Amino acid sequence: YANPIGCNQKSGEFTLGRFDPITGTNWNRMYHCNNQLASQFAKQYCDADDQILKTAFKAALISDVEQQLNGPDYRLTTGKRIALNLQRLAHQADIVLDLHTGPISSQHLYCPEYATESARYFNIPHVLVIPNDFDGAMDEASFCPWWQLSEQLAQQGREFNVQVEAFTVELGSQEKIDLSAAFDDAQSILSYLNHKQVFVDAPYKPKVMTRYGCQLNDYIAYYAPMGGMVEYLAPLGGHIKAGEPIAKILRMERYLSEQPLQTLSFDLDAIAILHFASASVNQGTELYKFFTNVFEL
Amino acid sequence: YANPIGCNQKSGEFTLGRFDPITGTNWNRMYHCNNQLASQFAKQYCDADDQILKTAFKAALISDVEQQLNGPDYRLTTGKRIALNLQRLAHQADIVLDLHTGPISSQHLYCPEYATESARYFNIPHVLVIPNDFDGAMDEASFCPWWQLSEQLAQQGREFNVQVEAFTVELGSQEKIDLSAAFDDAQSILSYLNHKQVFVDAPYKPKVMTRYGCQLNDYIAYYAPMGGMVEYLAPLGGHIKAGEPIAKILRMERYLSEQPLQTLSFDLDAIAILHFASASVNQGTELYKFFTNVFEL
Amino acid sequence: YANPIGCNQKSGEFTLGRFDPITGTNWNRMYHCNNQLASQFAKQYCDADDQILKTAFKAALISDVEQQLNGPDYRLTTGKRIALNLQRLAHQADIVLDLHTGPISSQHLYCPEYATESARYFNIPHVLVIPNDFDGAMDEASFCPWWQLSEQLAQQGREFNVQVEAFTVELGSQEKIDLSAAFDDAQSILSYLNHKQVFVDAPYKPKVMTRYGCQLNDYIAYYAPMGGMVEYLAPLGGHIKAGEPIAKILRMERYLSEQPLQTLSFDLDAIAILHFASASVNQGTELYKFFTNVFEL
Amino acid sequence: YANPIGCNQKSGEFTLGRFDPITGTNWNRMYHCNNQLASQFAKQYCDADDQILKTAFKAALISDVEQQLNGPDYRLTTGKRIALNLQRLAHQADIVLDLHTGPISSQHLYCPEYATESARYFNIPHVLVIPNDFDGAMDEASFCPWWQLSEQLAQQGREFNVQVEAFTVELGSQEKIDLSAAFDDAQSILSYLNHKQVFVDAPYKPKVMTRYGCQLNDYIAYYAPMGGMVEYLAPLGGHIKAGEPIAKILRMERYLSEQPLQTLSFDLDAIAILHFASASVNQGTELYKFFTNVFEL
Repeated sequence: YANPIGCNQKSGEFTLGRFDPITGTNWNRMYHCNNQLASQFAKQYCDADDQILKTAFKAALISDVEQQLNGPDYRLTTGKRIALNLQRLAHQADIVLDLHTGPISSQHLYCPEYATESARYFNIPHVLVIPNDFDGAMDEASFCPWWQLSEQLAQQGREFNVQVEAFTVELGSQEKIDLSAAFDDAQSILSYLNHKQVFVDAPYKPKVMTRYGCQLNDYIAYYAPMGGMVEYLAPLGGHIKAGEPIAKILRMERYLSEQPLQTLSFDLDAIAILHFASASVNQGTELYKFFTNVFEL
Repeated sequence: YANPIGCNQKSGEFTLGRFDPITGTNWNRMYHCNNQLASQFAKQYCDADDQILKTAFKAALISDVEQQLNGPDYRLTTGKRIALNLQRLAHQADIVLDLHTGPISSQHLYCPEYATESARYFNIPHVLVIPNDFDGAMDEASFCPWWQLSEQLAQQGREFNVQVEAFTVELGSQEKIDLSAAFDDAQSILSYLNHKQVFVDAPYKPKVMTRYGCQLNDYIAYYAPMGGMVEYLAPLGGHIKAGEPIAKILRMERYLSEQPLQTLSFDLDAIAILHFASASVNQGTELYKFFTNVFEL
Repeated sequence: YANPIGCNQKSGEFTLGRFDPITGTNWNRMYHCNNQLASQFAKQYCDADDQILKTAFKAALISDVEQQLNGPDYRLTTGKRIALNLQRLAHQADIVLDLHTGPISSQHLYCPEYATESARYFNIPHVLVIPNDFDGAMDEASFCPWWQLSEQLAQQGREFNVQVEAFTVELGSQEKIDLSAAFDDAQSILSYLNHKQVFVDAPYKPKVMTRYGCQLNDYIAYYAPMGGMVEYLAPLGGHIKAGEPIAKILRMERYLSEQPLQTLSFDLDAIAILHFASASVNQGTELYKFFTNVFEL
Repeated sequence: YANPIGCNQKSGEFTLGRFDPITGTNWNRMYHCNNQLASQFAKQYCDADDQILKTAFKAALISDVEQQLNGPDYRLTTGKRIALNLQRLAHQADIVLDLHTGPISSQHLYCPEYATESARYFNIPHVLVIPNDFDGAMDEASFCPWWQLSEQLAQQGREFNVQVEAFTVELGSQEKIDLSAAFDDAQSILSYLNHKQVFVDAPYKPKVMTRYGCQLNDYIAYYAPMGGMVEYLAPLGGHIKAGEPIAKILRMERYLSEQPLQTLSFDLDAIAILHFASASVNQGTELYKFFTNVFEL
């Protein structure tokens, strides 16, 4: 559990989840990345062999997190302390899987660009390809330093693969527990781990399926252009055409006075990955997130 | 809109709905019933003809509500003021339909015992039969005084039908807007209104369907015997058998230490009418509400 | 801690406290009272001596609570289960003190009518005198059955004092911790306990102070007659005169168009015991609670 | 009103205020700054006279905001849309005062470094001196572009004063309305405006008082090193010495088992500017914000 406070936080029936109820902080964006480390190691270890470099860099990442944790107690927010403790564990591993759910969401995978080959071993049809930019997430905190190191060494002409794979695995809707779907999710993860040779002679294989990719830049939030009651028309995972209706917004306060029902559409071909969890929205509420410029992986 | 504040109240994505965010008051239980009025009128109007009695009693109900509203301003809570204003309108009518939605809910109808005949004209498969006890709801506030009057006069040997019909019409899940379902709901209501001769020569007829009834006393809340993550197994509107699994509760904190997965069942045959909206529950959270001792209507 | 869930529940900085965040239930009003027990015992034990009666009735109260707890697990809400467990403990005692705080509140004491003599041993200047009516609170649950028994026996001409004393001790504002005030509160409680001979030769004495009493019926909530921003003018514990200003309400949305500033007053002499915790109120929000028809105790 | 949704949002008695209840977004950090504009104008208008440059740059700022507003409707979040609309108004002015309140807060002024002279005309004892870095706030959005322009031109050897003054004026605690304090606040603002020659022959003068300054970098948040119930010991606006007690934390769950009462101190001399609004905190909750390395202004 990464969010021990939010997951016990209720207001009405639903669970607040990933936000600090006090400050609104998104706990999934509190991780730490020291951008200096990679260039420092590329210089200092330019003659070291790969294994020594890997061991030293891993130790440096852990020690860097520990330094953050060991500062004066009063310097750490609730979320930062939790994140750093998780990250200290994560840096010890070569594979980091951050299992998530979203409000109302289809399965999708956050996958760093260099690891798209591995994405084919998860049974997840939607893959978000992310670049080497740190934005506070656990998966990025795990792979960015290694990716930076790999790039720094490439500039010296040395090939040094990214030594770590990290993914955020979005398993679906957070308020839905389905044990048979959970079994499928486990198979999917086992298939990936088998590919990474975590097991010996294990039978886990990926399903044959079409996997769609999308660059992070092309992952587009669609905010409600007006407030009201929403009928969501684009099915999760559904491929919609530019200009097709994706939602209807009913504004009861305009009933009998002007057009109370508005049809919304999106100006690009897209796949609907998630939508807002409630039928009641404000102007500017995130209605949908869409994959655009989709390609087959 | 009966709940102008709650329906704009968000905490995370979901809508607080029927509760006052400040005090927790359920706004649907703030209505007013003066139990003295019926016996007073039964005495005072024992010789008046039905129409005069009806007119006078209706006027008395409205005036009784207005007295409540016209007391010192500081005597009225937010919810009470809203309720009384709605009730002042409602008492003017012969038919009162209080349209509701629930968190995750199948369609059902709250129907006073004397009006079960009318319940057959709604296209709603589940009918909750309620007795002549006032518990604060709008429908009860509308019919209880008339029902009391009818009973008082019956004791005098005079037959005086309850002059008002009032129903709470539960249309389904509150966070789901579906315009074609809304169209069906409208047909259902038109069918009832046609039966009550609101229209002339209108074509609206009820659907042929099995309607199941349940006494309010047999409408049973099932509270979670332990906290955890819930997989709901009983489908809304589904007929379940005593002892069948209705939910599984997953307690991750017991993983590896003791039985983390518990299967729940209910000791009566039942129809699942609604369930909690979230997969995360505390011990004692209302998981389900069940019709039991079901009969065909 | 009676409210283990609410006291960890935050939304923004403040603590939800006494309400179930899911259902709005006030956890302090979930206690149990079996009104049959007293008359049953008055009959059955009419010839038993006082000590035997006391012992048997105490055992019956505990067993009655245990029966509630031992029903099917799914019958108990979160709050009911907590309340019954606390009550099972409370019925074992002869003195029950339910320590409370309120949002923004002066010290006051809920005291059953038969125990006003004891109220003089607390160093609390405001005493709310409550009758023998059960309204769900812990103190009432503790003394009502004994008070009923005493009254039943009085009808038989037998004098049998209420064997239990129970108070709700309101210690002040919930978001203010002050250890020196806490020390004074402890002295106040020790003084009462000393009066009840809990200690041998202990020095704890009540302070000399004027104590004001008020009947529960005269404890009046003052709801905001309009929404807006509030300046509270009546100091907590302050004696206000009928017609004096008690608050100003500023309605910015009326600025420049009509009178934006309203002065509120109350039509009775009163003592302000508590006020709303926020400066932003809706129409109908509880602004103040007042002692009226105050007498010296 | 900059936060029309948050200020109507309640959970329990208190007001959510500056956070979007759905996403946790801080609405005061959604403003827009186009860093390209200044360098573009420094180049393009290097030969233009000051007045022409000012007029053109002001028009460009407004048009830049309008471009953001005129993109596809679905691109704007709730908060961004509100912020941009406010900013469109603000860019038309030469003086921008963003009036704020905090949870429990003393008066303080956010003042850009170049305008510390003006800070002396407010009757506010605590002045936070902020550098030319944009962090999303309204005041920064107003002055940063002009400050950047001034700096760019300085590099060309041209002296061009920052043409706009913008301050965030923190007026105190958000849940406290006090009309006489409001009158003093108005005098303070009038004194500043008089200094800026907004009035002709007006009498408004600043009070003689010591004003303390602090660099933004030295404005330090103190997070609770452990959860518990807090007694705040450092008075708002009080000068505390390094090592002095600033709070006590009471952990009831440790009562009788280990040290339940902890005394906290801070390792620097400081002025307490604000503290958390509740006595109940989590580990990592922001307890205080302190001015350190304080100087007289």
